[in-house]
Amino acid sequence: MTVRLGSMTTAEAADAVGGVVIIPAGAFEQHGPGLPLATDLVRAEHVAERVARAVPGRVVVGPAIPVGVSPHHMAFAGTVTLSTTTFAAVVREYVGSLHHHGWRKVLVITGHGGNNAALTTVGQDLLTTHPDLRFAWTPVTALAGVAMPAATEVSGHGGEAETAQMLHLAPELVRRDRLEKGTTSLDELDPVARLSRRDGHPSLPVRYDLLSANGILGDPTTVTAADGESIVDAVVDRIASFVADWLDA
Amino acid sequence: MTVRLGSMTTAEAADAVGGVVIIPAGAFEQHGPGLPLATDLVRAEHVAERVARAVPGRVVVGPAIPVGVSPHHMAFAGTVTLSTTTFAAVVREYVGSLHHHGWRKVLVITGHGGNNAALTTVGQDLLTTHPDLRFAWTPVTALAGVAMPAATEVSGHGGEAETAQMLHLAPELVRRDRLEKGTTSLDELDPVARLSRRDGHPSLPVRYDLLSANGILGDPTTVTAADGESIVDAVVDRIASFVADWLDA
Amino acid sequence: MTVRLGSMTTAEAADAVGGVVIIPAGAFEQHGPGLPLATDLVRAEHVAERVARAVPGRVVVGPAIPVGVSPHHMAFAGTVTLSTTTFAAVVREYVGSLHHHGWRKVLVITGHGGNNAALTTVGQDLLTTHPDLRFAWTPVTALAGVAMPAATEVSGHGGEAETAQMLHLAPELVRRDRLEKGTTSLDELDPVARLSRRDGHPSLPVRYDLLSANGILGDPTTVTAADGESIVDAVVDRIASFVADWLDA
Amino acid sequence: MTVRLGSMTTAEAADAVGGVVIIPAGAFEQHGPGLPLATDLVRAEHVAERVARAVPGRVVVGPAIPVGVSPHHMAFAGTVTLSTTTFAAVVREYVGSLHHHGWRKVLVITGHGGNNAALTTVGQDLLTTHPDLRFAWTPVTALAGVAMPAATEVSGHGGEAETAQMLHLAPELVRRDRLEKGTTSLDELDPVARLSRRDGHPSLPVRYDLLSANGILGDPTTVTAADGESIVDAVVDRIASFVADWLDA
Amino acid sequence: MTVRLGSMTTAEAADAVGGVVIIPAGAFEQHGPGLPLATDLVRAEHVAERVARAVPGRVVVGPAIPVGVSPHHMAFAGTVTLSTTTFAAVVREYVGSLHHHGWRKVLVITGHGGNNAALTTVGQDLLTTHPDLRFAWTPVTALAGVAMPAATEVSGHGGEAETAQMLHLAPELVRRDRLEKGTTSLDELDPVARLSRRDGHPSLPVRYDLLSANGILGDPTTVTAADGESIVDAVVDRIASFVADWLDA
Amino acid sequence: MTVRLGSMTTAEAADAVGGVVIIPAGAFEQHGPGLPLATDLVRAEHVAERVARAVPGRVVVGPAIPVGVSPHHMAFAGTVTLSTTTFAAVVREYVGSLHHHGWRKVLVITGHGGNNAALTTVGQDLLTTHPDLRFAWTPVTALAGVAMPAATEVSGHGGEAETAQMLHLAPELVRRDRLEKGTTSLDELDPVARLSRRDGHPSLPVRYDLLSANGILGDPTTVTAADGESIVDAVVDRIASFVADWLDA
Repeated sequence: MTVRLGSMTTAEAADAVGGVVIIPAGAFEQHGPGLPLATDLVRAEHVAERVARAVPGRVVVGPAIPVGVSPHHMAFAGTVTLSTTTFAAVVREYVGSLHHHGWRKVLVITGHGGNNAALTTVGQDLLTTHPDLRFAWTPVTALAGVAMPAATEVSGHGGEAETAQMLHLAPELVRRDRLEKGTTSLDELDPVARLSRRDGHPSLPVRYDLLSANGILGDPTTVTAADGESIVDAVVDRIASFVADWLDA
Repeated sequence: MTVRLGSMTTAEAADAVGGVVIIPAGAFEQHGPGLPLATDLVRAEHVAERVARAVPGRVVVGPAIPVGVSPHHMAFAGTVTLSTTTFAAVVREYVGSLHHHGWRKVLVITGHGGNNAALTTVGQDLLTTHPDLRFAWTPVTALAGVAMPAATEVSGHGGEAETAQMLHLAPELVRRDRLEKGTTSLDELDPVARLSRRDGHPSLPVRYDLLSANGILGDPTTVTAADGESIVDAVVDRIASFVADWLDA
Repeated sequence: MTVRLGSMTTAEAADAVGGVVIIPAGAFEQHGPGLPLATDLVRAEHVAERVARAVPGRVVVGPAIPVGVSPHHMAFAGTVTLSTTTFAAVVREYVGSLHHHGWRKVLVITGHGGNNAALTTVGQDLLTTHPDLRFAWTPVTALAGVAMPAATEVSGHGGEAETAQMLHLAPELVRRDRLEKGTTSLDELDPVARLSRRDGHPSLPVRYDLLSANGILGDPTTVTAADGESIVDAVVDRIASFVADWLDA
Repeated sequence: MTVRLGSMTTAEAADAVGGVVIIPAGAFEQHGPGLPLATDLVRAEHVAERVARAVPGRVVVGPAIPVGVSPHHMAFAGTVTLSTTTFAAVVREYVGSLHHHGWRKVLVITGHGGNNAALTTVGQDLLTTHPDLRFAWTPVTALAGVAMPAATEVSGHGGEAETAQMLHLAPELVRRDRLEKGTTSLDELDPVARLSRRDGHPSLPVRYDLLSANGILGDPTTVTAADGESIVDAVVDRIASFVADWLDA
Repeated sequence: MTVRLGSMTTAEAADAVGGVVIIPAGAFEQHGPGLPLATDLVRAEHVAERVARAVPGRVVVGPAIPVGVSPHHMAFAGTVTLSTTTFAAVVREYVGSLHHHGWRKVLVITGHGGNNAALTTVGQDLLTTHPDLRFAWTPVTALAGVAMPAATEVSGHGGEAETAQMLHLAPELVRRDRLEKGTTSLDELDPVARLSRRDGHPSLPVRYDLLSANGILGDPTTVTAADGESIVDAVVDRIASFVADWLDA
Repeated sequence: MTVRLGSMTTAEAADAVGGVVIIPAGAFEQHGPGLPLATDLVRAEHVAERVARAVPGRVVVGPAIPVGVSPHHMAFAGTVTLSTTTFAAVVREYVGSLHHHGWRKVLVITGHGGNNAALTTVGQDLLTTHPDLRFAWTPVTALAGVAMPAATEVSGHGGEAETAQMLHLAPELVRRDRLEKGTTSLDELDPVARLSRRDGHPSLPVRYDLLSANGILGDPTTVTAADGESIVDAVVDRIASFVADWLDA
């Protein structure tokens, strides 16, 4: 039996109303020389489906958002971005439609950190416009915890963790022979870029072409599919545990 | 070699700039007791990919739009809709990003007729905002021509043609045993609904629950996968021929 | 007794609530060397008034929309255009006001095809925002049917049919001595323009300066006021018949 | 030779570029038992046309705005209103189109005081968006000066001055036998309404149904067409004098 | 006991619900060589607080709006402006929040005339969206009446009246040694600027750099703190009297 | 010499162009029985001014934003909130104006965590619209590090850290005798509220009335002005150090 709402008929959807709907959100953006543009959606959809299967009969995976908020990657060919306003409108209207049919719990799983802020603003606005709805959202990689593989001083976009996940989830989309190190240490960066990577606040956003010539932070050549499996398992466990608690709350 | 931009790396995307980008647009809406909510996206994506393969090396398939303009189906569970404004913003921002990278020809293939008007407004606005861009869009089923199977007096949504396409393209998603006749003749309709189905203008939009109790117009039980293959072949031929002419124009 | 709401007092308007309100929509755009910028509004207003008189006591003509969606004509002096969003907002707010006073049936008659898509999006949005309202819209010329005069291979804007209507409805606004042939055959067009004029889909919108040096499609010199009378009579009959059926439905 | 841009062809419009374009703006709102809903547009259009004729060859009358900002009259049947945002968008887009063709001076003549604030905001925004354009606007009645007829303590909407103008400009639209006194003195008003009519600031807007049972302020039965002629002459003189100075400035 | 809502706890605010909330609105814009950018907010806040104290126990001063609508001053360094749309949204959302807590009377005191039109549009829109709320607004200087000091032929921004008020209310912010005459007579202006300063309508907005080289209209060197005290006393009296009448109405 | 741009004249502002402009952003929201509604603005303004003084001659404090994004506090009287969209528009327009005058580095210091997401979206959008501008933002309390006082298991809004800061910065605004414990342990919360307070993601926003009856998280009775001084010193040091590095980068 499918957990994907899009594969259900309207009658099956009617039976599924209640519980949690997960919306997987991605990005359509550069992930360096070895990973595809759809990397973040691929990961979000796999995690969403596995979470749904982990809490059987109470969770469905709704429509995806294939394009996210990626202005910082626009110097790299193929990146497609929504403005923060349009991304937020899309989330709000998905949620509004699901609410219309009777769902009261919606969880967005975003494979792309650039969506986090817009998701937060949607959550704020929904407190007022839909007081009887609960809206949650979560990133993917940030939940890996101890499952995170060792990484270089600077690491992140297109680096160890994302590559490992793709080697596990969609190895056919990884160009293993093209994987290469990106920026791995703070002293490779110019002063402004270094400031933007400092831990904590103030927050100083910069474009990715200032951070890395090939678009990568970290060294994706050092990881394996097994690393990715550990990450995904840890992330799915944590989200599924949240969902189970939420359903019982 | 993939034709899907989302499966390419940024370097491969850079090589692919030029030619035509196809954006497949669907709907997430009821298609009666036998077809899944994602029916329109499934058809649009298949047609897009086949058109891209038919004009090799000059066409890529960009990010999809999984949810369309479906307010008329909101009485049926599971339907998710965007407002016309948000749908248009999404299209405009996809196109704007592709234009930024150098593409000058974008074609939207929509599996859902409810998107047609919003796509037209986007095309109008782009004439002013992006004068060096050409934007085209097309429906799917309407291009079938003589390949259309015989149909009942009233036919359309979830009916003969859409069901045949799904039997051909994604038979695993069709509940064959649930397929059933919907509204098939004008005299089953109340006067307002009948008026809204009259050929030509004036145009009088009504909600689908006024048109059909089960959401279907036509009789989906009479068609086969072979009918669907004929439709899809005809549609792909016609769009591919347009694209080839466009690339040469 | 007037059928124009604008000529009524508020007390007379109160008596007229119910039935159908017609909103005539035009364009303010080039119509070649012989026709005035207001051509589309002139035709829409005449047709609206005649339809109202054909269904006596049950139809009024509300406020007009003198400027439509005309970005494709902006290369020609004097053209004034609204964005699709603003045009839609105007229609929505006219309709919302009429609904506030108790009307439940609104029909827009547009003399300009560039408004069709925006009108359709308004109709879609109203299904959700005003479920107890019926909104219909119709073009003018497209309803002429067999009354259409013979025309050249390429024909349309400022051509045979529109000129004939103006000769009948507002001859004092036609510069007969300036009427001249525009583009009349596909082989006068460059390949992109020709592609945009192909029947059916895909739809490829282009600016009018690419289609015709003088802004005309067809040959307006071949028609007479009698041709225009036939067109207008046919159009009025068809819309009036729709309105009568609608009032009874 | 016409001064109305809408009656010109595109070639004539091209010749008219330069000088001043006047946009007449009305309202579609109650004017009591004796005057039609279109009263404000009728007056604005007449004044606009007469101003254009008074400065021959240098002024044209562009497209009208038949519906204005009238939320305060919505308790009276037939009133149609735009939101302040949509009204402003319409003005801005008319002006933007005229600017595109080369005009640099646009004057809005509004027959309706409810449009004044939105016109002012448009003028403010244009200072930034179109620095090479000059945008002016003016009411009608407020310019009458000594030509104003004697009026009751409370007077204004649908009262002496507006009725006189309509008796002069469009007597066929006035129901003389229905003209009747409205609110004429402050002590007929409840305390809040009285406060809202106090001279000067603070400004306290209230709905018209709080100000007058029949929608009228003043006594329209006391004026004549000759009074209206005096008003219109004075207003036209004053605007024409401004336009002449502006063209020379 | 404070009259400033921002200095109250939520429990104290709950006790204060009812009565009038005053919102002081300023501008952040050039006021010539002798006055600070915050001049208009300083004056609005002082007047607001004094009005609140003059009607004890029934009026509180809510959150301020420190930046107003100032596009006409953007040629002068330091000026910060909101668009008319954003300014109106801020006012509307302040008012909406106060309405949510139970207040039904809100008064904006604006130290900056550039806000007047946007405030008026907010008042118009609120008639429809919040029919049970009364919204009033007032300028400051315009209420001075006979307390206005003698002034030059051209006078206003940064001139006699504003300087006098600042000498009274915030002398530590006035650079007395930098105060200097601005434009003081019409014949110093070029023809367009002169036209824009003519009394009454038509209204022709221009940028301030066209009106005055140093940003000043009038002669601020001729006034004293005592002049300012007279103005402020007169303004406070007049607003307080309005508020008292309003509370009783 | 002042560091507040609002206290400068336009000439002084012109001299100050370059360097960093700080925008202090607050909230206007409940802070429990002992702290005023303006708590977050008071803290942001003090920190901003002290940072400006710590990097002398290179930093000014621009206009404040007194009201932030506080829908989660609307159940408590006196709270005023902006929507996320309007808050973002205000920030964007402040920044746009400062950019117009030549500043290229803007830092928002927000005393209210509810503004963080909207500030992040503004930073994302500015990467595209103002590529030559650097935009940074920072919270206050989160930078305290080891200077944070001991706190209860659940702590935060209106609790130990915020109260300590107010005792140090604005003791006259603290009702010491009203300070009282709020929610201090997870087991006081209902299951949904407890889930929303779990560390890390998923993020589940809830209204504050679900978290605390008196609006407080933590125990504000245990801290002193000296605690507040330590926090503020630490925060100012950290931001000033960032600003100094930024100016040199």
